[in-house]
Amino acid sequence: MHTFEELALRYGQYMKDNSFTGKPDNLYEPMNYILSLGGKRIRPVVSLLSYQLFKDELTTEAFHVAHTVELFHNFSLIHDDIMDQAPLRRGNPTVHIQWDTPTAILSGDLMLVKAYECLLKTQPASWQGLLSVFNDTATAVCEGQQKDMDFEKRDDVSKEESIDMIRQKTAVLLGASLQMGALAAGAASTDAESLYRFGVNAGIAFQIMDDYLDVFGSENSGKQAGGDILSNKKTLIYLLALASASANDQAELNRWYSLSGQIEGKVEAVTGIFRNLQADKNALQLVEDYYRAAENELENLKVSDGKKEPLYLLLTMLKGRKN
Amino acid sequence: MHTFEELALRYGQYMKDNSFTGKPDNLYEPMNYILSLGGKRIRPVVSLLSYQLFKDELTTEAFHVAHTVELFHNFSLIHDDIMDQAPLRRGNPTVHIQWDTPTAILSGDLMLVKAYECLLKTQPASWQGLLSVFNDTATAVCEGQQKDMDFEKRDDVSKEESIDMIRQKTAVLLGASLQMGALAAGAASTDAESLYRFGVNAGIAFQIMDDYLDVFGSENSGKQAGGDILSNKKTLIYLLALASASANDQAELNRWYSLSGQIEGKVEAVTGIFRNLQADKNALQLVEDYYRAAENELENLKVSDGKKEPLYLLLTMLKGRKN
Repeated sequence: MHTFEELALRYGQYMKDNSFTGKPDNLYEPMNYILSLGGKRIRPVVSLLSYQLFKDELTTEAFHVAHTVELFHNFSLIHDDIMDQAPLRRGNPTVHIQWDTPTAILSGDLMLVKAYECLLKTQPASWQGLLSVFNDTATAVCEGQQKDMDFEKRDDVSKEESIDMIRQKTAVLLGASLQMGALAAGAASTDAESLYRFGVNAGIAFQIMDDYLDVFGSENSGKQAGGDILSNKKTLIYLLALASASANDQAELNRWYSLSGQIEGKVEAVTGIFRNLQADKNALQLVEDYYRAAENELENLKVSDGKKEPLYLLLTMLKGRKN
Repeated sequence: MHTFEELALRYGQYMKDNSFTGKPDNLYEPMNYILSLGGKRIRPVVSLLSYQLFKDELTTEAFHVAHTVELFHNFSLIHDDIMDQAPLRRGNPTVHIQWDTPTAILSGDLMLVKAYECLLKTQPASWQGLLSVFNDTATAVCEGQQKDMDFEKRDDVSKEESIDMIRQKTAVLLGASLQMGALAAGAASTDAESLYRFGVNAGIAFQIMDDYLDVFGSENSGKQAGGDILSNKKTLIYLLALASASANDQAELNRWYSLSGQIEGKVEAVTGIFRNLQADKNALQLVEDYYRAAENELENLKVSDGKKEPLYLLLTMLKGRKN
């Protein structure tokens, strides 16, 4: 059994050995660039963690599947950054800034093709199961991203719709990473589905915590506090507050969210309203509920406890984040 | 044996029966919209033509493959229109104009996923061959589009590079449509490859003719004459002229191509230079050479002449276009 860190190292080596070498450079360099920006490689590594629940030896097959989800994730980053007009990703210029929008669209497109190509390096016997999960996941991620954009223009988004959007946009891919790792290792489909639900629940919890920390996070996090508030993003935290808001509170929130730019006192005022309406407590309760649901899936999984250990550690790592 | 027109009708019905029904609407409506804009459906129909060379009965399988190439083609149209900032497609607003750029990026992405999904409706026994051709084709199309954009910024593009770009950007997909139709019908890979080369050569000829007609086409074509000249596009016609240009001619061409907008007399002057340098004759010679190469592939194909008839008719149809 390898730990998260060991697998991250081994995956890093695989990624290096499989960097893109095609021509023209303007198409392939952005693909290597976005992959080089780092990150915790959480999706490929959990895919490997899932694989080793069912097979002792980590084959190349396992790495192909892990790489597929990382390629897909990075395809979505390139295109999301264009849609969100984001200038920076992990402190570096986004692809459409470093090159241009046409190049970013096209290198994202090719990255998606290469994700399929990578998945097809596995044995044909695995394709049916893997491709079915992968296609469903890709569809869900696109639907989630569109919902996220649609919600920005709507005033009547419910808490349930918001969680469903989070599920599709970010959590499903974490679930699919685990499910595909399991399938590649020959796991029974019921076990693979259980790991999928583990990942989806953990992913939802993680994303809600992300929204929570953006508002209530420690000042030492290095991120700008209240970025979502300043950009008037109607996150789940906002919706939780709105759900318990009086007419007065609603008017006050609407007023703040109609103002754009770096408004003096806005973050403090809105954060105060959120606290009064217990959005912080309600958000943490949701986080706990989803992590608990993830844990339940893990407990019920028919694999020895020793083998599950790295996934419990993963959960502890995810839960323990403070920024 | 069905004719091109019969197959176009039957494919039209299949397409109608398989329109997208998912949610959110902002994601799926653009996909149905771009497909509804029409066109000759040349790629899916040649795929069906190729299929019926090897199987008498047109199965659903054949239509899934035909639809895959049409979905891929339309994915590339949505994204290319963003990159080219094109406001219109077949007289209608492009997707990024009718909706917006983020929605166009995302619905294009999902269309590519749906192309894979459609291909996987075929029998798993066909997947290895079909997916290999499809992935290679998708890669080539992206490379071709990037080269096209790169070439706009270069002054030293050779005739060979330009033809190679045309091959990747447009001809390979026509070839792949034929090859995949043949493979789905269980053709030998050598026959499928021969049909691929038939399609690629015909596709190159067709595209060069397209560039030719833009400059020298009949005035009754309904298109603006010299659109490529007015937008300073360095088409193969331009490169053919440049290849035989004296220093004076080169200077004259450079001068015209440094001017933007609707310049009085520009189209006539540049067309005159092109004619003097025999770019028209050289282009038509290339068109003839590539159609001849396509014909050769068809002649050598080990299928009865009767069965080949619709493909010869296709070639006649392609060759006969005057606008």
